[in-house]
Amino acid sequence: MNVEMKPIGYVSTAAKEIPRSWTISQIKGSLIIDKIYLEGLTDIEPGQQIYVLFYFHKSKKFTNDFLRIKPPVRDRKMGVFSTHSPFRPNPIGLSVLEVIGVGGNVIHVKGLDMLDKTPILDIKPKEHPV
Amino acid sequence: MNVEMKPIGYVSTAAKEIPRSWTISQIKGSLIIDKIYLEGLTDIEPGQQIYVLFYFHKSKKFTNDFLRIKPPVRDRKMGVFSTHSPFRPNPIGLSVLEVIGVGGNVIHVKGLDMLDKTPILDIKPKEHPV
Repeated sequence: MNVEMKPIGYVSTAAKEIPRSWTISQIKGSLIIDKIYLEGLTDIEPGQQIYVLFYFHKSKKFTNDFLRIKPPVRDRKMGVFSTHSPFRPNPIGLSVLEVIGVGGNVIHVKGLDMLDKTPILDIKPKEHPV
Repeated sequence: MNVEMKPIGYVSTAAKEIPRSWTISQIKGSLIIDKIYLEGLTDIEPGQQIYVLFYFHKSKKFTNDFLRIKPPVRDRKMGVFSTHSPFRPNPIGLSVLEVIGVGGNVIHVKGLDMLDKTPILDIKPKEHPV
């Protein structure tokens, strides 16, 4: 069974050098969401943290060579599911970004570790009542 | 541009009643990963927390009616991207689970909020060095 996804929008940033993780990023940019989803952006507020799921659109096709890889900050190879490698069986990335503003269908964020034009698949609140 | 994903495995649990969030779940079960990815499971350890991305395979097709929905614990409708609703433009779920054991291609976990047979798309470490 295959699952088909369609981007809900794209990352926009002037930054050319992107940190390898949101945890060490101060990069600002925007998430430009398709206007058909505008109503779905209600309640996203400045100061909030959001999970952003995105598509590693520049990644090479996954092969067995990527099942174990050496992360930049490790001295040995690790299983791909214990890393944040962009070369994964399903090339989905996850970042935690800070919302610094919202205007219409554009969410301004800080902490980007995605390239300009990265397709966005989903946004979820990091904190939420249960 | 559409993005095609293929499950890497499936959830297995005897539980029939599933809590609506991992944050309030004590449910145990297993993630049964396709053996072709066995080597990629190296370094997943008991006691660790993992992000699990999964496919809401029982969700109805997304329509504009789901752009704003009332979460069970709220008294009003909210934008879908401020909720963890299973009815989303791209029906990807995100849970944080605790690993209680690993044997071959099976990861035993606690905190399940997915139904039995839910397709798994990706696993990432919650904590990782950068």
